[in-house]
Amino acid sequence: MLKKPSIPKGTRDFSPKEMTRRNYIFNTIKKVFEKYGYSPIETPAMETLSTLMGKYGEEGDKLLFKILNSGNFLSEIDAEDLKFSDSAKLSFDICKKGLRYDLTVPFARYVVQNRNDITFPFKRYQIQPVWRADRPQKGRYREFYQCDADVIGSNSLLNEIELIQIMDEVFANLGINTIIKINNRKILNGLAEVTGESEKIKEITVAIDKIEKTGIDDVIKELEEKGIGESAIDIIRDLMTFEGNNLKKICELRRIISQSDPGSSGTKEMEILIDYLRSVELNSEVEIDLTLARGLDYYTGIIFEVKATDIDIGSICGGGRYDDLTGIFGLPDVSGVGISFGAERIYDVMCKLNLFPKDSAGTVKLMFVNFGKKEEKYCLDLLSKIRAKGISAELYPDQAKLKKQMTYANIKSVPFVALVGESEIKEGKITVKNMETGTQEKLNLEELLSLLSQI
Amino acid sequence: MLKKPSIPKGTRDFSPKEMTRRNYIFNTIKKVFEKYGYSPIETPAMETLSTLMGKYGEEGDKLLFKILNSGNFLSEIDAEDLKFSDSAKLSFDICKKGLRYDLTVPFARYVVQNRNDITFPFKRYQIQPVWRADRPQKGRYREFYQCDADVIGSNSLLNEIELIQIMDEVFANLGINTIIKINNRKILNGLAEVTGESEKIKEITVAIDKIEKTGIDDVIKELEEKGIGESAIDIIRDLMTFEGNNLKKICELRRIISQSDPGSSGTKEMEILIDYLRSVELNSEVEIDLTLARGLDYYTGIIFEVKATDIDIGSICGGGRYDDLTGIFGLPDVSGVGISFGAERIYDVMCKLNLFPKDSAGTVKLMFVNFGKKEEKYCLDLLSKIRAKGISAELYPDQAKLKKQMTYANIKSVPFVALVGESEIKEGKITVKNMETGTQEKLNLEELLSLLSQI
Repeated sequence: MLKKPSIPKGTRDFSPKEMTRRNYIFNTIKKVFEKYGYSPIETPAMETLSTLMGKYGEEGDKLLFKILNSGNFLSEIDAEDLKFSDSAKLSFDICKKGLRYDLTVPFARYVVQNRNDITFPFKRYQIQPVWRADRPQKGRYREFYQCDADVIGSNSLLNEIELIQIMDEVFANLGINTIIKINNRKILNGLAEVTGESEKIKEITVAIDKIEKTGIDDVIKELEEKGIGESAIDIIRDLMTFEGNNLKKICELRRIISQSDPGSSGTKEMEILIDYLRSVELNSEVEIDLTLARGLDYYTGIIFEVKATDIDIGSICGGGRYDDLTGIFGLPDVSGVGISFGAERIYDVMCKLNLFPKDSAGTVKLMFVNFGKKEEKYCLDLLSKIRAKGISAELYPDQAKLKKQMTYANIKSVPFVALVGESEIKEGKITVKNMETGTQEKLNLEELLSLLSQI
Repeated sequence: MLKKPSIPKGTRDFSPKEMTRRNYIFNTIKKVFEKYGYSPIETPAMETLSTLMGKYGEEGDKLLFKILNSGNFLSEIDAEDLKFSDSAKLSFDICKKGLRYDLTVPFARYVVQNRNDITFPFKRYQIQPVWRADRPQKGRYREFYQCDADVIGSNSLLNEIELIQIMDEVFANLGINTIIKINNRKILNGLAEVTGESEKIKEITVAIDKIEKTGIDDVIKELEEKGIGESAIDIIRDLMTFEGNNLKKICELRRIISQSDPGSSGTKEMEILIDYLRSVELNSEVEIDLTLARGLDYYTGIIFEVKATDIDIGSICGGGRYDDLTGIFGLPDVSGVGISFGAERIYDVMCKLNLFPKDSAGTVKLMFVNFGKKEEKYCLDLLSKIRAKGISAELYPDQAKLKKQMTYANIKSVPFVALVGESEIKEGKITVKNMETGTQEKLNLEELLSLLSQI
């Protein structure tokens, strides 16, 4: 009973200080999403397992948290069967629900389920936690937030432009210097086609996806192991190591993969995108990165990834176009494109680069010291008048030692403390202590209000 | 495969319109919490089952959602045992975690676990979903939000005053007329004591808790069935049906239960509270309601409940003081007091009374019609300038039929639509249509910005 309580591994509590910082990130993202016309939705934490299974690959299926059916969950299972059951099989007999693994699949499910009430193109954002039974390790959690924006029901590349603007603006507002990398799954498809390796497109994508972690040599080795031909590997190597600006890369693409349909169409899209980007002002550089592959199976067009340039921490935002995500739920031929901000990594970047605004620490502007019953009532009245101006203020609830009260104010980063004793009540004044400088002055209520509204 | 997808019963998706309304409620509550010096925390959706079990009564234990252990969860269970296992026993062998059932127990766990980092009194608020495997019915869900504020580590009645002010201000800001009812568990204890029925205090509390639903006669019947003596029932009936204002009720309490220690102390607390309330201005009436009992076991002092006066929907906010909630986790003698807003019911009240602000519908202020490639680029530039002023605006992404584009703007409640064709580009003007009145005018960018900033 008296063992110190704990929480499940891989999960976290968030203290007021952490919450203030996390909310600063979420609110910044939310504000930009809304400025670009995205509307919020929320989906339940639990989805039926049939919605989730088979959407994240075999590995993903294993990482789903399953929820035990309520009540007598064994009632329909034969005791003999139970004896010979294994965990994997039994889990589906006794669990019908699971916790969501990401926000994209629930969104696709939402769109199909509510298709008759939705006006397309549908621009939605969603900021909610997701759960994965991953092995917990530094920076990887079993419960973490995702911040997604997606447009569904429009093929226009203007959506990609808009999402690039959103990524750019969010990071500019957070003060993080970034580079936005783009590529196109069609280019990878074209590459597989012109090298005669179309059947191995999955293997090629998976291998290329590791290039940044392992380097080109290991990728070549993996391609060889997967049975990709020598001449194909030569072409892939040449393109993956090609250096030059965006226009040069587009020229090189035209030279190498334009005889393939997806290759030519993917190159064309990149060209249009780069051309459009001239009409908008961005803080970040946008770079075509032909080695960018992104792991997820469902991408079919342009893909994005954002990296912080002042710190080596991997991608802090990513996304891309998917042409048939709603197809798995019975609504084919609806194209979508979306991005997802990695809130946890962004938090780490901002801590390490010291980017959180200083005053995001505390919200209370003034604390009244508690001197006793008589003063309490007097302060309650003043407090009402201060709060009526929308200013956050409080009265220490107990008549504790002054030192204890001041420590409380200090730890809560309250900038001003009010001392109202007998003499102040007589004079109709308030002694106000500036907690940063330590100076004190006697003010009337009006002067105090004007002081507080200046913070 | 093509069966329309669905979500687990008792759970809900929230559409953009619902989200905007829900966020209006949450933000109103949050703002008031912060104005009174409460800081946000968050706890994980999953807690270890040992944290949750035994805290909500036998019924509550059954309503916990349990999460299946990951991996080979049967590995440590003998196949023979498995055969003879029942659901209840097996569930604890194969589940170590559960979804939180409320926010109070996780908060108590948080306080004990982090006691060395917390400065007391600790004022926290928490707005997160909770999960209960209840039978879904109208207005009752398996996933719903709670909005809690609690102070822990202070015995002062000033905290009760503050929480009453918070309840009052939240409902005033939401436009809901309310009455705040208060009582004190010590009064119920005193009543049990003076009637010689202290051992049956639980039965008395449970019976009285039903008075509003079933009426006094059924309560008397229940008390009789529980073996409460006749003279005791007479006293209880007299007090429960006593009519008069707060001061008269306090006098009556003094007369009847002051010879009991808890009775006298509870009466004294009510007297102080009513006296303090004279120093603060409230919109709602605060009424001592001697029939108020509240179901939860852990309350030990003053209890609250808020009712909307213009609609019959039950309590929309409630709470009270609990003297030893952290004791179950090994930190005794820490008193706390808190309130919880019923967001789902508040939502229903506001819908029925039509209290949501009209403009909480859409955030986008202007939509550019898409006339084609050339116009797109021109609009992208204008759009950047409009968004730079913090105004939410968008460009329809596809060159669809005008009617389709206008329908989109209409459904999204966009107040102004911009039409920029060849002639507008030549003139450097923007044709702006007011979607409410249907009128059109040609403006330059500056005029448009001033129009939009007036909304």
